[in-house]
Amino acid sequence: MKIAILNIGDELLIGQVVNSNAAGMGRRLTAAGMSVGEVCTVGDDATAIEESLQRLLQRHDAVLMTGGLGPTKDDITKTVLCRFFNSELIEDESVYRNIRRIFAARGYAMSETNRRQAWVPRCCTVLNNEWGTAPGMWFETKEGKTVVSLPGVPYEMELLMDTAVVPRLRSHFGTDCILIKNVLVQGIGESFLSDRIEPWELDLPGNIKLAYLPMAGMVKLRLTARGRHEKPLRAQLDEAVKALYTMAGDYIAGEDCETLQELVSQVFTKAGVTLATAESCTGGMLAAQLTALPGASAYFRGGAVAYSNEAKETLLGVRHATLEAHGAVSEETAREMAEGVRQRLGADFGAATTGIAGPGGGSREKPVGTVWVALASAQGTETRLLHYGDRRLQTIDRTCNQLYADLVRMARKVSTLQ
Amino acid sequence: MKIAILNIGDELLIGQVVNSNAAGMGRRLTAAGMSVGEVCTVGDDATAIEESLQRLLQRHDAVLMTGGLGPTKDDITKTVLCRFFNSELIEDESVYRNIRRIFAARGYAMSETNRRQAWVPRCCTVLNNEWGTAPGMWFETKEGKTVVSLPGVPYEMELLMDTAVVPRLRSHFGTDCILIKNVLVQGIGESFLSDRIEPWELDLPGNIKLAYLPMAGMVKLRLTARGRHEKPLRAQLDEAVKALYTMAGDYIAGEDCETLQELVSQVFTKAGVTLATAESCTGGMLAAQLTALPGASAYFRGGAVAYSNEAKETLLGVRHATLEAHGAVSEETAREMAEGVRQRLGADFGAATTGIAGPGGGSREKPVGTVWVALASAQGTETRLLHYGDRRLQTIDRTCNQLYADLVRMARKVSTLQ
Repeated sequence: MKIAILNIGDELLIGQVVNSNAAGMGRRLTAAGMSVGEVCTVGDDATAIEESLQRLLQRHDAVLMTGGLGPTKDDITKTVLCRFFNSELIEDESVYRNIRRIFAARGYAMSETNRRQAWVPRCCTVLNNEWGTAPGMWFETKEGKTVVSLPGVPYEMELLMDTAVVPRLRSHFGTDCILIKNVLVQGIGESFLSDRIEPWELDLPGNIKLAYLPMAGMVKLRLTARGRHEKPLRAQLDEAVKALYTMAGDYIAGEDCETLQELVSQVFTKAGVTLATAESCTGGMLAAQLTALPGASAYFRGGAVAYSNEAKETLLGVRHATLEAHGAVSEETAREMAEGVRQRLGADFGAATTGIAGPGGGSREKPVGTVWVALASAQGTETRLLHYGDRRLQTIDRTCNQLYADLVRMARKVSTLQ
Repeated sequence: MKIAILNIGDELLIGQVVNSNAAGMGRRLTAAGMSVGEVCTVGDDATAIEESLQRLLQRHDAVLMTGGLGPTKDDITKTVLCRFFNSELIEDESVYRNIRRIFAARGYAMSETNRRQAWVPRCCTVLNNEWGTAPGMWFETKEGKTVVSLPGVPYEMELLMDTAVVPRLRSHFGTDCILIKNVLVQGIGESFLSDRIEPWELDLPGNIKLAYLPMAGMVKLRLTARGRHEKPLRAQLDEAVKALYTMAGDYIAGEDCETLQELVSQVFTKAGVTLATAESCTGGMLAAQLTALPGASAYFRGGAVAYSNEAKETLLGVRHATLEAHGAVSEETAREMAEGVRQRLGADFGAATTGIAGPGGGSREKPVGTVWVALASAQGTETRLLHYGDRRLQTIDRTCNQLYADLVRMARKVSTLQ
């Protein structure tokens, strides 16, 4: 079955908000074996919404809409849906109860504007939204197609997708089986990888599709397999991945993760080793990305964001003489940062970054984009000099990804030794 | 003039990559006075690309495409454009030189696959891409409309938009003036804000549009004004914002920023005061968000990510007895963390977070979502207890935004006192 996504909101068109809802919905639908044919984004404009809905319904079995359900005047989705389905707005008792419950729990008074959110088109089935005041709405057309309207707040949309929309779509339409395999490749450029694995790629069965997803300093290969039955499909996919290892195994950091930080989390937790971070140019990004994943406290001891020289000395014990002699961005400083944080926090591994992310701060000897990283463990300390460009966020991301790949390699080595 | 954006890539439909390009393009086009009528995303599918291009051209003056220009087999945009414009692929000398230059600078060898990126449709004007191997391409239809194809790598797309596409579109079409004003509101829910400012909203001139953009724990109000001439338009917009202050001034954290961390950066830099952070449940997010902005070293001294109790003692000097008596998530610990980091890094302000982000770790007395924050300065230490829900990332984001708003208020107060 084919699904279209219709995201509504001026803020998406003018780029003030990144449309993360489309990705969140796409992931869920794909995982459930449905395929997304198109994502369309239009503004808070009745004609544009109505015409897009009409058009998307011609080519798809269902259209999933988000946005335009808030209590404020720029939210017009319900009015448009009423007209589209030739229905009228009525107050829904269950929605009204839900809104009252939410306001009571938060200890807030409820306004007339809030109560307006309990009005829904008479012809729809309400999908109760436990986490917010705007309900989801399920419509069916005379032609047997489905239209679903969801709130634009990401976590409310996600909850409704998981608890109501995806299960209902599955039972309504029945679906093919889709399996996805991610392989994270690091240390080789996209086109070199492509040349290297070309024979393998040409050999892939027709029901397995390959995509290259280049990220900061790495490439994610995504294999999507589609078939009637899960078991033989999984065997076919495993076979394809096995063959990939014979062509590019040296560069494969891991599988079944979306990101390298997820891989760090898996490998460290499994190996039972701990990590501490000492960050200068990455400014806390290593720690923030690792702790954004649940369960980080199992292996992550903590870290320092040593942005100033003083912080490097006070928090990490970097020697004043080292900073004087070699500067903050140097192999020696990176080494002392990694060793210092490892020792102070009693971790198995200490990871450090120090560099010039830019746009200012560069010199002839150390241009913007110069980064030193260091990894300290009981086996000693490894350092690495990196040269990136003058794009601040890109340099931060690439430094983090390089460190994650190195950490995974080191942790695997250590856990083999044990 | 009206523009459509067409983003190409299976990874966008299945949700493996969030479509941030649409927002990056929308922001640039809007700032240049052009309006985006629709964003359409389709997969790596020749028919879908061709049909969408055809359809979007009917309603818009220009269609800007991204993606599908890589060297790998799943990238088919050039083939589709060739057929669409009834043209043929030829090797472009300037693109080939650029690819050779990039490979030489990186010290890599060049493959045949890389050279293939120098092939472009004969009928296009090449937009040179200094930062990558896939060029931008500018096409004009017989009907006087424009089609632009850009690489999908975000920073390459952004560079090409800024240096080539936007200037060319402006001179090609000529444009209206659009002014945008963001007002960041914190400490009041969206619907209460809406009730409060309703009379003001109803009074807005027809050429000024208002949008509510709720974010984690705050609301961004966006005013978009459109007119022929900049000066009177700016006066009109200033007038509207002034009137907004009379209705909701108590809740307005600041203007002309996209985020509260940007506001922190502005206010701290201007006031000449410094900041240090001590993070437990936010795991480095405060530091990472603040240092992602250029110029952070002007006011940000550094911080500690004190994820374990040991790290709280070692890095911040939190007393063992305090942790024993009150636990890691307590007012006392938050206070000692903020004071400790302020003192150790010699900063004017110390900001601390400690809480249970979940999903695990909650108890009856301290359920998941319980967060203590503390702000230490020469004037003393303020603490605040927050209750959020069981959504880890939401709790982290809301805690950060609450702290940013508090930091801005405190820094403004101090700089008034000076």
